[in-house]
This record gives sequence, C-alpha cells and structure tokens, in this order.
Amino acid sequence: MIKMEKIQKVIEKIEPIDRQMMEKAQKRLDFLTKPRGSLGRLEELAKIVVGIKGEDNPNLKNKVIFTLAGDHGITIEGVSAFPQEVTRQMVYNFLQGGAGINVLACHIGARVVVVDMGVACDLKPHPDLVIRKINYGTKNMLKEPAMSREEAIRSIIEGIEIVEKELERGIDIIGTGDMGIGNTTSSSAIIASIIKAPVEEVTGRGTGIDESKLKHKISVIRKVLETNRPDPNDPIDVLSKVGGFEIGGLTGIMLAGASHRIPVVIDGFISGAAALLATKMEPKVKSYLISSHCSAEAGHNLTLNFLGLKPILNLDLRLGEGTGAALGINIVDASIKILTQMATFHEAGVSEDL
Amino acid sequence: MIKMEKIQKVIEKIEPIDRQMMEKAQKRLDFLTKPRGSLGRLEELAKIVVGIKGEDNPNLKNKVIFTLAGDHGITIEGVSAFPQEVTRQMVYNFLQGGAGINVLACHIGARVVVVDMGVACDLKPHPDLVIRKINYGTKNMLKEPAMSREEAIRSIIEGIEIVEKELERGIDIIGTGDMGIGNTTSSSAIIASIIKAPVEEVTGRGTGIDESKLKHKISVIRKVLETNRPDPNDPIDVLSKVGGFEIGGLTGIMLAGASHRIPVVIDGFISGAAALLATKMEPKVKSYLISSHCSAEAGHNLTLNFLGLKPILNLDLRLGEGTGAALGINIVDASIKILTQMATFHEAGVSEDL
Repeated sequence: MIKMEKIQKVIEKIEPIDRQMMEKAQKRLDFLTKPRGSLGRLEELAKIVVGIKGEDNPNLKNKVIFTLAGDHGITIEGVSAFPQEVTRQMVYNFLQGGAGINVLACHIGARVVVVDMGVACDLKPHPDLVIRKINYGTKNMLKEPAMSREEAIRSIIEGIEIVEKELERGIDIIGTGDMGIGNTTSSSAIIASIIKAPVEEVTGRGTGIDESKLKHKISVIRKVLETNRPDPNDPIDVLSKVGGFEIGGLTGIMLAGASHRIPVVIDGFISGAAALLATKMEPKVKSYLISSHCSAEAGHNLTLNFLGLKPILNLDLRLGEGTGAALGINIVDASIKILTQMATFHEAGVSEDL
Repeated sequence: MIKMEKIQKVIEKIEPIDRQMMEKAQKRLDFLTKPRGSLGRLEELAKIVVGIKGEDNPNLKNKVIFTLAGDHGITIEGVSAFPQEVTRQMVYNFLQGGAGINVLACHIGARVVVVDMGVACDLKPHPDLVIRKINYGTKNMLKEPAMSREEAIRSIIEGIEIVEKELERGIDIIGTGDMGIGNTTSSSAIIASIIKAPVEEVTGRGTGIDESKLKHKISVIRKVLETNRPDPNDPIDVLSKVGGFEIGGLTGIMLAGASHRIPVVIDGFISGAAALLATKMEPKVKSYLISSHCSAEAGHNLTLNFLGLKPILNLDLRLGEGTGAALGINIVDASIKILTQMATFHEAGVSEDL
C-alpha cells in the first residue's frame, strides 16, 4: 500500500499544461517571417512544448530515450516470429551500439538509457545497463495473471525512479522505447481491454508472423482476456493480468515525465499501450504526450485516436526500441528552433500581410 | 536553339537508377538486427538513395538546399496576401539567416544556396547571393505569356548551371526550395494544365488569402489558362506561358540532379509544379525525386499522386523556401545511417526469426 502511495504522490504533482504560455507562443509565432500558421504542425509542437515546460525559450538539449526490456511468458504459446532469447541478445546489442535505436539516437543527439525491467535471465553487468528487474519474465498469461498486483505497482514505480535518477544528468525531453519478444501480444490485450475494441482490430504481425500465426495470436489473446477478465477501469489490474514489466515501466516514465513537466515523445504500439494505462491513471498525462509516428502494427491508429494524439511521422515503422520516438524528437527539436531562432517581420524588415 | 541542345544533353545523360544495387541493399537491410522490413519507409528511402548513387555506402555529408526566388507579374491581380516587395525582403532575410529555411537547414546540417532567378528589382550584392536573373519578374500572364520561350529555356539552363557550379563544393543530396509572391498562382496553372485537373481542385490559399480572394484567384487562373492555352505536352510552352523563373530554375535543378545521380528531395507545392515539368521533359527524372512532405496547399496531394511519389512527412506545412525538403533530407540521412551503421544478426550474436 505504501507503494501505491508513491504513485499517487507523483500523480498529484501533475498539473495541467500552461495554456497562457501557449497563447503567448502563438503570438510570437505570428510575428515570425512567414505567413501565419504556415509551419503547420511545427508551430503546434512548439506550442505544446512551451505549454508543458512553462518556459518562453525551452531548451531541448538533453534528449533521453528510455529503452525498457522485459520478457513475456506468453511467448511459449508461439505468438512471435523470434525466440525469447532475442530480448537478451538485443539488450547486449543496445549496449554495444549496434541496434536501430543506437543509430537513430546518435543521429538526433540523444542518449539511450537501457533498462532491464524483467528479462528472463540475469544479464552480464555493463556500465550503461540499468537493472530494475521485477522478475524473470512475466508468467504465461494464458494460464495465470502475467504478474502479481504488487509487481505491477513496482514496475510503475521503477519507471518513475528511472526518470528521477536520470534527472541528475539532465532531461529536457523524453522518448519511450521497448524491447521484449512477445510484447505486441501483451500490448494488444491491454489495448483491446481499455479501448474496448475487438481483438482482431488491435492485433498485428509483430516482428513478422504469417497469416496462420496471426490467427493463432488473435485466438490466444481472446482466451487471455476471457481467462483473466482485466478490469478496464483499473489500469493496475490490466497491467498485472495481461501486461509486461517494460510496459509498466513505460507507464511510470510517462507519469514521471508529466509530473516533472517534461514532454514525452511516445514511440509505437507498445508505448501506446503504456500510454493508455498512464492516461487511465491520470488523464492530465495526455497533454504531456507527443505521438512520434503511426506504427504499421494494426491497432496503433485506434490507440492514438483514443488518446486524441496525432502522429508526426508516417513511415510504416514497426521496430520499437524508441526508433520512431527518436525521429519524432528531432522534429520537435526543429519546432523549438523555429520558435526561438527565426527573425520577426520587424527584425528582418519584411512587410506583413495586406 | 543551341540552348535547347544544352538541356537535351543533360537529359540524355540521365540513366535509370540501379535496381541491382537496390536489391543488394535490401539483402543487407534484411541481415540487420531488426525484423525484416520493420523500418518501413526508412528502408525504402535507403534503397532509393543506393539506387540513385549506385554506391553501397552512400555519403550524404554535403546537403544543399537551393532556394530560388522570382517575382510574378500576376500579383498585380490581387492573388496574394502579401505585397510583391516581400520576395525581395525575404531574399535579404535568407541572406541574414533569419528565415525558416535558415533555421531548418542549420538544424539538419545543410547549406542554403540563395538564387535570384528573377526578382523584380536589382538586389544588393551579397557574397552568398547567386544572381541568375532572367528578368525583373514575369509578365502579367492574364494579359500575355509570363515569359518568352527563350526565357523559359534560359531559366532551366540557369538551374542546371547552378547545380554544376555548386558541384565544386560537393553535393551529396539536394533539397529544392522557392520564394516568390504569386508563385502558388503560377504553380496551380502549371499543375492544372499538366495533370488536367479542374483549377479549383489545385488552387489553395497560398500565403493565406480569405474565401473571396480564393474565388478570385481561381477565376484568374481559369482566365490565364483560357488566354494562354499552354500545351500540356510541351513543358517549355507551359513554363513560358504560365510559369515563373524560379520554377524553371527548379526544373533545371531536378534535371541536373538526375543527370549527376544526386537524390533530389522536393519541397511542397511549387517544387511539385517544377517536378511535373521536369518529369514531362524526361520521365526517368521521377526515380531521382523524393517527396519530403504533403503540403497543406490544395492540390499538392494530386500532384504527388500524379508523380507516383509518397511524401515522408505530414506536417501541414505551406511555407515553401525548402523547409519541408530540409526535414525530409534529415529523414533520408537517417535511413542511410540505418543501412550503413546498424549491426547484422551475425555481428551482434542475435538469433534470426524462427
């Protein structure tokens, strides 16, 4: 119970974003040497960041992508194209700098924080690996709840603490990322439960399963939901019954980001499921979230619609890791440079509209 | 006539892009530590660049955005929200580094080449201003052709020569940009003529005119087309009768880019019109063009569909200058880093799919 209080405290700290500052930013945007509104969503993004940070000239220097890894007991049911050991192998790949997220984070000047939230084995220690392991993978949720209620709460708290710890090094904007063989299955179950959509509409091919495996995956998720009956009004219940440790961690990261007035650029399908949980816990979190891209994974668009978020990019990505978030952060960064570095009509001696 | 031969020579140099190299790049992408195809359009973009350059490890270090300025006689008919002098003022703004394109080019590490293709007055000399002036603005195309056939040809040749000159400093990827009060009117006329679409479907609010001015603009363009009767099968005829000097210059830039196997990331509405002219002159140019974004200007989507190009970004931009191209180049850059910097399954010791 003490643990739930920790989450409650963070939630209570979350304030609405500053609409007055946003209006001020819009006025400033209107004085810049361009037709009004002609930079479309770049202007919108700049305003959102100003509203979140409550600052005229927000600084986005410290870009941090949190890539959380966890294993899923459900993989034993044959829902993924890759074996479970790939979660561990990919964590090592992150630490060696060879994965997609490393390349894109470097491209945009972000640092990647790699976290073991619940990989199924003990990982070799590495100076850049953060260990926040809740357990050695979730249970097979076809047979029993994926985790205990206490583990669900702990995974959220670990997510909060990862952000709080990282604040020492500075965080101006957050990107969320995930790694976990089987975690699209878990995310589909969360999404189906919370947005009350038919399973087949929110279930995709994940890492690339074929038609017959997709049918199997859908039927597994249906059974998972029938067996566990998660309560959509209780996000902790949903997380514990059909979630994953990295998903709980991402939920915590979003709550912590909002409580510290840091914009959180969410990645794709898995981050979308975590965002449903976080916003269910506290609807004000929604204003702190920026959707980077619309994943090619079926159902991500429904999730974003439900959240009222409009993706920045349409690149048919479905890798996860935070790759879409990285590219999204870069566009948000551009939007702030527009706001703070462009000349005004007056400064440039340009005539305004007739 | 000698001049048309110069263009013909450039066109003859344009080769199909290298499909074999693209297949090789796809194989390499499939060995990288990610599910096959999971980086969606990033993989597609990397392949296109490899096919264009015919190189395994293309280098995109030298990013160059060509921002071409020109004035339009048609502005006298009240088709724009801004006075004609803004073209000149904005050129000075580009040279002082205060415009949107300066901010975004700096953000992505590109240099901007600012060109006077036909501003209506003499501009103060500046070390970074390239003067390729064809004339002091086009004629009022409601009364007569916008320019002579010879001027149209010259504007294309100047565009070609701008690229050839800049090659001395190195160009690995090109972005196209424009500045010219009145040039959405000219572009709408070009687009309506070439894709044979009703004027009202390809005419938008440009810098931000209201409903009644939009109706007026549409009726002006209709009359322009009736008066001039440009021949859609003769792009030089279309350019001379309803085009602009900066649009001709952009057409030349696209032809030159293709002839030198350089990817050309096109900006929005004006670049789209120039792309129609360039691909009409030589359909092979199409493979060298990458669409950066779908402009908010009505009809840009129809243009892209006609060209068979899929935009990378949906940011509701409608500024021009090359701002969308800059952000697009940055995503293309990311795609090449994915291709060339990610670890393979073997290198990273990651298991492949089951």
